Amino acid sequence: MKHLSHNQLLEMDARYRAQLINSLSGFKSANLIGTRNKQNHNNLAIFSSVVHLGASPALVGFITRPDIVERHTLENILQTKQFTINQVNESFWQAAHQTSARYDADQSEFEQTGLTPHNVAGINAPFVKESHLKYALKLREIVPIELNGTQLVIGEITDILCDDLAIKADGYIDIESLGTVAISGLDSYHTSQRLSRLSYAKPEIQPIEISLDGNTLDGNSFEI
Amino acid sequence: MKHLSHNQLLEMDARYRAQLINSLSGFKSANLIGTRNKQNHNNLAIFSSVVHLGASPALVGFITRPDIVERHTLENILQTKQFTINQVNESFWQAAHQTSARYDADQSEFEQTGLTPHNVAGINAPFVKESHLKYALKLREIVPIELNGTQLVIGEITDILCDDLAIKADGYIDIESLGTVAISGLDSYHTSQRLSRLSYAKPEIQPIEISLDGNTLDGNSFEI
Repeated sequence: MKHLSHNQLLEMDARYRAQLINSLSGFKSANLIGTRNKQNHNNLAIFSSVVHLGASPALVGFITRPDIVERHTLENILQTKQFTINQVNESFWQAAHQTSARYDADQSEFEQTGLTPHNVAGINAPFVKESHLKYALKLREIVPIELNGTQLVIGEITDILCDDLAIKADGYIDIESLGTVAISGLDSYHTSQRLSRLSYAKPEIQPIEISLDGNTLDGNSFEI
Repeated sequence: MKHLSHNQLLEMDARYRAQLINSLSGFKSANLIGTRNKQNHNNLAIFSSVVHLGASPALVGFITRPDIVERHTLENILQTKQFTINQVNESFWQAAHQTSARYDADQSEFEQTGLTPHNVAGINAPFVKESHLKYALKLREIVPIELNGTQLVIGEITDILCDDLAIKADGYIDIESLGTVAISGLDSYHTSQRLSRLSYAKPEIQPIEISLDGNTLDGNSFEI
């Protein structure tokens, strides 16, 4: 097994290190964040850092890059206080990747990549029509991470749009059935193959496989 | 397509909402965090919130729950300022899940789940021997998220241990070849199937599929 030391990390070529370090966190979520600026221009950008923060209130966050690069997504969110998050699926993963190209602020990534904006009354940000699971958020907080100039942008979920069949009896959403993809490193895309859902873990009891609906496999409901 | 409103979210049964909201961020990383307290007791806990924060310096973060529950991982990190992150793979995903049971602080999840601690000189936290990609971090910052009492714990990577063959020519690590699993929702585990790596996105140029080593598929090196 290879052992890379701190000094070896510091001396690495920057691009090599970026690929390597981006591979360490494991599989990442693949989401398109939709925003709109005051001039009504739609923006769409892929993020691999969307992270669950809490269910009550329903909070989701993502990491933005330092402001040495243009950050249209963040600028738009600061203007409207709203954004959408749209899960990337296997029908449009290449178009989703292409949103990471450095388009100008007045170029819409929807037009440039062929994805379709979908508007919902009362939400001042575009959804991605091609996404099977998407939600709107209002901005709640921007937490600065001073160590490297990034920021954790936190939104509260206000509306969820999801293919009905994917929502299971206990609230679990079968995102595999929606074709949702995962990212590894900076640029690798993956579909998934379920091993199983597992029962809630308790000391002294081995976890058991449970059904997609959250029941034991003999059909009894599962007590947690 | 089902549309769930903010009011419907607020009125949901708490367990149903937890399953639902935890499914929204997409596929999550599956990692075991290894720590040790001052009494030399090892602790191991699964986290699905490990997130890449930056490559230079090499920073990784994870979200801890509010302190209304015992948080042995965080308590130990505050004592030693060190921890390890170990990617979960398909050879021990059930044991990894079992670490989420509420063991007492003096019970080691290694002994309880059958996983093997692996010590490296100079690092005061245990690695998981069964993991094919793991790294040590020193604590850099704990960022409070006041909206819900969670915290973003940030470490800087000091040492990386990885199966040599998985590290590709441009630094990308083929975590699929390591059997690394992803999580959806609270309790579903998944292996992956690569669609492709894609070339760095530029305006006006469609991204192309590239090899695992980061080259174009005709063997030429890929210019970014």
